Amino acid sequence: MISKVDLADKFTLFKDHWHPRVVGELNDSYVKLAKLKGEFVWHQHVDEDEMFLVIKGMLLIRLRDQEITVSEGEFVVIPKGVEHCPVAEEEVHVLLLEPKSTLHTGDVVTDMTVTTIDWI
Amino acid sequence: MISKVDLADKFTLFKDHWHPRVVGELNDSYVKLAKLKGEFVWHQHVDEDEMFLVIKGMLLIRLRDQEITVSEGEFVVIPKGVEHCPVAEEEVHVLLLEPKSTLHTGDVVTDMTVTTIDWI
Repeated sequence: MISKVDLADKFTLFKDHWHPRVVGELNDSYVKLAKLKGEFVWHQHVDEDEMFLVIKGMLLIRLRDQEITVSEGEFVVIPKGVEHCPVAEEEVHVLLLEPKSTLHTGDVVTDMTVTTIDWI
Repeated sequence: MISKVDLADKFTLFKDHWHPRVVGELNDSYVKLAKLKGEFVWHQHVDEDEMFLVIKGMLLIRLRDQEITVSEGEFVVIPKGVEHCPVAEEEVHVLLLEPKSTLHTGDVVTDMTVTTIDWI
C-alpha cells in the first residue's frame, strides 16, 4: 500500500524549530519537513547538495558572498561545499530534500544538531 | 551566484502537457516541473523511485492494485518497479523529483516519450 503525504497535516504534528522530520524517502534521499525560526548555524555539507522548498513564510539564506530570500512557492539548491546560514525572522515551514547521509548542521556540530531520524 | 527558483514563474514558461522541464538539480537528481492533462501511459521505472508533488490541481495515480488521489500540497513517492499510470482529469501542475537517469515513460517508449533534457 502506497500512501500520499499531506504537507499541511504533517506540519501539525510538531512545533519545535530546527528539528527536521522525515516524511518520505526516495532513492538515497529523505524528504524532510522543518519549522525554522531565528538564526541557524553557519555550516556546509561537504558532499551533498541540499534543496530548500519554502511552503510557508520567507527564508533568508546567508552565503558568504550573497543573500537569498526564498518565499513561499520558491526553492533553492545549496550546492555541496557552500557555507550557508538559514535565518527565519518569522516562522518558516520548509520541505528539505537531501541525501540520507546529510546531517542538517553539516560539518558543524552544535547543541542544535539533531542526529536522530524522526519519521512522522 | 546561486539563484532561487519561483515555481509559479517557471510554470508560465510552457504550456504543453506531459513534457517535463528541468528547473534544478541536486546530487544525482533533477527537479522537474510538468503540466499534465489527460491520461498518460502505464509504465514503471525499474531502478528509480519517483516523487510527485502536486502544486496545482488533483492528480490521480493508478496503480495495478490501488488508486491514489494527490491534491495540491500533497506528494507521493512511487517506488521503483511499481507500474503506474498518472491521470489528470483537469490540468495539474506537478513538481517531480527523480534521478537524472529517469525517462518519464520508464520502461515504455511511446510517442509521448520525451528524451531531451529541457532546462527552463
